[in-house]
Amino acid sequence: MSELFVGIDLGGTNVKIGVFDGEMTLVGKTSVPTNADMGVEAVVAAMANASCDLLKAHGFSLEDVAAVGLGSPGPARYRDGIIVAATNLPKFRNVPIRDMLCEAMGGKRVAFANDANVACLGEFAAGAGKGVEDMVFFTLGTGIGGGIVNGGKLLDGAGDNAAELGHLIIYPDGRKCNCGQRGCVEAYASANSTARRATEAIEAGTESVLGKVIEAHGEISCKDVYDALAAGDALAKEVTDGTAKALAVLCVNLLHTTEPARIVFAGGMIAAGDALLDRIRYYFDELIWGLKKETVEICFATVGEDAGIIGAAVAARED
Amino acid sequence: MSELFVGIDLGGTNVKIGVFDGEMTLVGKTSVPTNADMGVEAVVAAMANASCDLLKAHGFSLEDVAAVGLGSPGPARYRDGIIVAATNLPKFRNVPIRDMLCEAMGGKRVAFANDANVACLGEFAAGAGKGVEDMVFFTLGTGIGGGIVNGGKLLDGAGDNAAELGHLIIYPDGRKCNCGQRGCVEAYASANSTARRATEAIEAGTESVLGKVIEAHGEISCKDVYDALAAGDALAKEVTDGTAKALAVLCVNLLHTTEPARIVFAGGMIAAGDALLDRIRYYFDELIWGLKKETVEICFATVGEDAGIIGAAVAARED
Repeated sequence: MSELFVGIDLGGTNVKIGVFDGEMTLVGKTSVPTNADMGVEAVVAAMANASCDLLKAHGFSLEDVAAVGLGSPGPARYRDGIIVAATNLPKFRNVPIRDMLCEAMGGKRVAFANDANVACLGEFAAGAGKGVEDMVFFTLGTGIGGGIVNGGKLLDGAGDNAAELGHLIIYPDGRKCNCGQRGCVEAYASANSTARRATEAIEAGTESVLGKVIEAHGEISCKDVYDALAAGDALAKEVTDGTAKALAVLCVNLLHTTEPARIVFAGGMIAAGDALLDRIRYYFDELIWGLKKETVEICFATVGEDAGIIGAAVAARED
Repeated sequence: MSELFVGIDLGGTNVKIGVFDGEMTLVGKTSVPTNADMGVEAVVAAMANASCDLLKAHGFSLEDVAAVGLGSPGPARYRDGIIVAATNLPKFRNVPIRDMLCEAMGGKRVAFANDANVACLGEFAAGAGKGVEDMVFFTLGTGIGGGIVNGGKLLDGAGDNAAELGHLIIYPDGRKCNCGQRGCVEAYASANSTARRATEAIEAGTESVLGKVIEAHGEISCKDVYDALAAGDALAKEVTDGTAKALAVLCVNLLHTTEPARIVFAGGMIAAGDALLDRIRYYFDELIWGLKKETVEICFATVGEDAGIIGAAVAARED
């Protein structure tokens, strides 16, 4: 019997692995450190070993696996199975990861896709995508990743690098982004950029309770900013409003591009809850045209951090 | 024999009609005034009569027609066959145009789609889309229309109103757009907006040879602005640079969304030639990230004003 699917989510810090049956019911999951500094071969061996251990712990072996799915950061040549470069995996340069993992997994077929696209697919299949055919998905974390489902299928683009949605320019000539562009939404509205904008304002002399957090810890996190917002801090209000407005512009622009029925936000930053979601919706209503009534739903993801392993398994099944 | 396709492009001023065989070779074409102020019934009758006359002129009749395609401005409920409203067709409010045209055409099946999407399909099938599967298309005229082809198919979205690309916000809180939003690319880079920005600068006291055009004719056109650019006028340079930069931002944003292999500009404004295209490419290279080398081609449409009737016929064939 070969009817299990292994979904692997390769991150800069951890590798998450899940085993699923053909209906995408979770059999078991695990997480191991990536140890990216040990080099590519070690990372591939760790992924394969952890997968085999996980299968064994549930009474299975590689024999029972139909296919493997791998989500990884890019840019990559996904069709060719090659990671070109990845900010959080510094030793991964032009790595034929798909073939290496295939070999390490006893020749099993490996589906390879962008990590954010894979998480989008997981959320679409098992979470906030239920009941719609057209969805846009954003992950708000260190950066902003994206995924687009159109007519029930992941939109892949001419070179499998579609939906790099954190790098839509919303303020031309604006803040410098890590990608080299200026004015990307990621440079304003990721968790890191939200914290950084607050830090810059404090360094420029703005009064805020966040000043004490910097004094105590040397830095502030996005969570600190939303905590300060809850405590009524004026700077936190200004900064988080900027984040919400940038994300609302992104929603308007995606609505006018692929016209999703649902726009889903995921990632660590959604822990901010309604203080984030209500403001995104507020600015969306402020910004959107009046030519017709829009019915798109803007909501949070429901699957959480398992979206990556579910999506990778779905990608393996659909490959 | 029923193997001909009639493609109809319903515009505010004229209705263009083409008859095509199954290989989309043009049998004949015609154009009649829309006379939108005569009311919906009269417009539908005029479309049907002109189609029958065109068929007859080439030795055919409605008997030889397999299906009809109609491209119209929106917003519309394309799946339901209803024009909700259209700026250039003031008497068209909640008009069941598809069924009306079907009846007037002797019960022939009518495929109904957005005019810019239909032009995109025509350009994809017969023009600048040759050799690629993923394309983005912009029409630069009174406004800015758009179309997206993904994997060889027109992207339609959850409610058939995808690719309203003129209304991507590129300057939040910027210029007011006719659609009710602020900072739309259409408010900067359409032919009308390009002329309007020049007019506003002159009214605000900027020196320009265009001042004399306004004195002589009461207004200036986009062509006047590009003529002034060719004559070395500084204001025309500033205004057309703004147009090119806005369009380049649009190109970057679409590349990061649907990742086309080719981005195609069409519409009256492309008569400006290299003075427009070279500057779009220049700003695109300035603005785009450095994470990987991009190979997207930015070019002009080649089919010209027949794109609408070809695309409507293609839509009829593929419906």
